[in-house]
Amino acid sequence: MSEKMKNLAYYDGKIATIEEMQIPMTDRVCWFADGVYEATCTRNGVIYCLDDHIDRFYSSASMIRLDIPFKKDALKALLTDLLSRVDTSETGGEGLIYWQITRAAGVPRNHIFPKNGAKPNLWVIVTPRSLPDPFRTAKLISYEDIRYYICNIKTLCLLPNVLASQAAEDAGADECAQYRVNCDGFDRRVTEGAHTNLHCLKDGTFYTAPLDNLILPGIARKNLLRICSDLAIETKEVPFSLDFFRDADELMISSSSNFCIRVTHLDGAPVGGKDPGTLDRIRTALYADYLKATAQA
Amino acid sequence: MSEKMKNLAYYDGKIATIEEMQIPMTDRVCWFADGVYEATCTRNGVIYCLDDHIDRFYSSASMIRLDIPFKKDALKALLTDLLSRVDTSETGGEGLIYWQITRAAGVPRNHIFPKNGAKPNLWVIVTPRSLPDPFRTAKLISYEDIRYYICNIKTLCLLPNVLASQAAEDAGADECAQYRVNCDGFDRRVTEGAHTNLHCLKDGTFYTAPLDNLILPGIARKNLLRICSDLAIETKEVPFSLDFFRDADELMISSSSNFCIRVTHLDGAPVGGKDPGTLDRIRTALYADYLKATAQA
Repeated sequence: MSEKMKNLAYYDGKIATIEEMQIPMTDRVCWFADGVYEATCTRNGVIYCLDDHIDRFYSSASMIRLDIPFKKDALKALLTDLLSRVDTSETGGEGLIYWQITRAAGVPRNHIFPKNGAKPNLWVIVTPRSLPDPFRTAKLISYEDIRYYICNIKTLCLLPNVLASQAAEDAGADECAQYRVNCDGFDRRVTEGAHTNLHCLKDGTFYTAPLDNLILPGIARKNLLRICSDLAIETKEVPFSLDFFRDADELMISSSSNFCIRVTHLDGAPVGGKDPGTLDRIRTALYADYLKATAQA
Repeated sequence: MSEKMKNLAYYDGKIATIEEMQIPMTDRVCWFADGVYEATCTRNGVIYCLDDHIDRFYSSASMIRLDIPFKKDALKALLTDLLSRVDTSETGGEGLIYWQITRAAGVPRNHIFPKNGAKPNLWVIVTPRSLPDPFRTAKLISYEDIRYYICNIKTLCLLPNVLASQAAEDAGADECAQYRVNCDGFDRRVTEGAHTNLHCLKDGTFYTAPLDNLILPGIARKNLLRICSDLAIETKEVPFSLDFFRDADELMISSSSNFCIRVTHLDGAPVGGKDPGTLDRIRTALYADYLKATAQA
């Protein structure tokens, strides 16, 4: 077998390291962010929750009217093959895989879809990475959600998320609790983080925002709801206010590569810590799910 | 003098044709649409309204906390030099110039701003293009505005604009009249097009949406307001409803490379046509402004 790569970038059939990969300036990602993406963690050559991520990828693409020109099985096989080419021996077999599809390249800049022959381009990056401690904690800031109304689609229009993330970083925090002003009867309705979903526990019930156009249908969120059901923890997918979130017994963020992280501070003040037992059962079960799913290729 | 190019692409000091230019996959435009842009028309080696576009470019960059690492004069000189390298002899001396700046390249994908040494990258494209007939007409469709609340910043997060433009194209129209639902007391408040500003005439007064976070501060819009003042036409920068717009005496779209275009249809029905004299004075004056400003390099 040929030597493994330190990392891998794939663009439309071409393979190189991430540092070396070049892409055509005419790819519509360069002018319009015209594409959708996915990202998740990997271990032992297994892409965690691959089927869920593939389903969401095709769903996102469909919602922006981008026809992916290959079957789900072919994409899964390609991603798994690309992952196998990267050396994860120094990161305990763990890594990250990211992929995106953009509408076209090689056509003049024009808002409307290209008409003739231009086909979507697949991008993949694989990076070795040791999983950070899944039992670490996070600090949040509250932040007004000024994003578009298609947050259910995992598009590349992430500049507002970049600005929100940087605001958290500037405040010495890890993530934002974004809220919509005057939304669904709430002065400030919690939506999601800049790159995670938000949840909380109150009186033993797990609360998370409902699936609509204001949040991404997170795979970790879906897993958490299943785990709560398995653990006989009641769940409510309902809108809630920033005050409700702030006063909850426990606050959590989740994502595919961060699992379920306990929130200790919101806007500099301590929050949560009132139901550590339930929180631990949930986050331990999610981490165990990952370990089991990725035990062996 | 060396032979002129058929078109030109510039990226971070590198020059090639648009078709040949490659950019690093690590440019943050590829993951986050993390940048801002400008575009305008050119003639006789002159970039139309360059100072205005440069000012807005720096303003957009500032609002996304991107520090442009060179002075306005240096950028103006570079753009003018790059324009001079392109052959516009077959397009009556006319062309388009587009430029953007992205936050960084060569750093791992991470929402927060790169910390050490990563610098913004300038992109430019120059294309010969004969100006389309400035006295042509346009058809619009009404379209719900679902964009983010920083539409005053000319960012690369244009996928919603792409989808809106394609919806217009699918309907056999040229542009959208975007409206916000339940906004400022209006059921449907007109904002702007997918790539133009919107205006109308009613009882001899020129109406356009006020400058706020819902619309781009268009340079053509600014020129139109100045021209109306010169022509003693009253102007009102106020919110208005889709019904007000539909029933106006004349409806117009404007942009830097399209000037002021008369709208003849909205959602398939004829509109405007009730004050052609005022409309003609305005659009003729704007086109004359372009001809005068670009008469000679």
